[in-house]
Amino acid sequence: SMDGAQPPASPTGLSAYVVVSQLLGLTLLVTTGAWLGRYRGGVAWHSLLQFNVHPLCMVLGMVFLQGDALLVYRVFRHEAKRSTKALHALLHGLALVIALVGIVAVFESHRTKGIPDMYSLHSWCGMAAFVLYLLQWLLGCGFFLLPGASFSLRSRYKPQHVFFGIALFALSIAACLLGITEMLLFNIRDSYSHFVPEGVLANTLGVLLVAFGLVVGYVLTRDDWKRPPLAEELALSMDFKTLTEGESPGGGT
Amino acid sequence: SMDGAQPPASPTGLSAYVVVSQLLGLTLLVTTGAWLGRYRGGVAWHSLLQFNVHPLCMVLGMVFLQGDALLVYRVFRHEAKRSTKALHALLHGLALVIALVGIVAVFESHRTKGIPDMYSLHSWCGMAAFVLYLLQWLLGCGFFLLPGASFSLRSRYKPQHVFFGIALFALSIAACLLGITEMLLFNIRDSYSHFVPEGVLANTLGVLLVAFGLVVGYVLTRDDWKRPPLAEELALSMDFKTLTEGESPGGGT
Repeated sequence: SMDGAQPPASPTGLSAYVVVSQLLGLTLLVTTGAWLGRYRGGVAWHSLLQFNVHPLCMVLGMVFLQGDALLVYRVFRHEAKRSTKALHALLHGLALVIALVGIVAVFESHRTKGIPDMYSLHSWCGMAAFVLYLLQWLLGCGFFLLPGASFSLRSRYKPQHVFFGIALFALSIAACLLGITEMLLFNIRDSYSHFVPEGVLANTLGVLLVAFGLVVGYVLTRDDWKRPPLAEELALSMDFKTLTEGESPGGGT
Repeated sequence: SMDGAQPPASPTGLSAYVVVSQLLGLTLLVTTGAWLGRYRGGVAWHSLLQFNVHPLCMVLGMVFLQGDALLVYRVFRHEAKRSTKALHALLHGLALVIALVGIVAVFESHRTKGIPDMYSLHSWCGMAAFVLYLLQWLLGCGFFLLPGASFSLRSRYKPQHVFFGIALFALSIAACLLGITEMLLFNIRDSYSHFVPEGVLANTLGVLLVAFGLVVGYVLTRDDWKRPPLAEELALSMDFKTLTEGESPGGGT
């Protein structure tokens, strides 16, 4: 922020929604930890508890950090585009690394216990979400961080990047819900229908995941909460139009 | 369409995406039928097969018909707003009736077999999706079909209606994925991990559900595929502005 200058205000309501999203996100992590700690024996890498690293990493990486990376452009509305973009890429990168640790954990745990990999709908949806998320991150870095892509190419790719970003976030949450259901049916199949505390807690985690997705999705898609283009971006866009279309900056398409 | 007049063309690509969505939708129904018919004994109301009415109705109502109801404004781009709106409400209404039949089927089947209701994450997500979908339909009829709501109220509610419409469609698909996982873990728990045909078929149904959601979601959210306002709507909007703001139709806010 510039010295002495009053920072421009955020739109009414946006800050409240962002606060709620962060409270939901932290509650997600606490609830996941409570489930694993209280009912599943806790988390440890070199042990039979290695499996439990998986849900913890996936909720942290593929939901909380992915969601926060998506919110970056709504929260930092008036910072330089360059730094906001770097933070967006960094948070997604961190999410990917943590998710990778979670995936290694489940594959190693399966190998230890002699359980086959990749047979369930959860594993198909989850792996699709992770691989497409990695691809989306690589494409995003290639188009928006590297200097090679032209302004025109970036403008044409951006709507696809935004759509698939939100779609992959939704798919990631759906994969978590499937994972919760699998874990409950493998561990408490017979008592689940008697509303035992573990079942209710894990269902509540599922509802919180949906609520986090709804709040983040609402903040992202609300038209009047979109990041306003900075003066320098408008100037660049007009220069570009003038150069390529041979029109005056105010001309129509 | 008017006599002799050439109907205005749809945007390039839109028709192809709509055709793909309908092929995916029909494949969804066929795959669900094949799963229930080939591996689950078929479908019948007054029998132990009553449960199987549930997945069939939910895929037909909460996914295929709900998705097609959302697409109405993209497919019928140049018809009168009034008839398109009526078709939108009618398809959602039909989806709700079919979903209700599917819900009754699972409750009656549980009662026959002595299984408790509403304990699983699938039931929580599915019931939330159905109840909120019904509420959204009632609010939509109240705001947009009944003559009571002002133009200003409609304009303020519309973005909420659109966001929650897409969000509930996504939640409905997630609930179906959870239902598939539950059915597989209850029925083929031990053979699922050996990639038996029923497991692979049901997983494929899950992937098709996600693909249908992605294609419909892409068509709905692509900016340049949105329905262009008709001349009469623009005129109405300008009249409204003139009346309420006391400005000339071209004036800024």
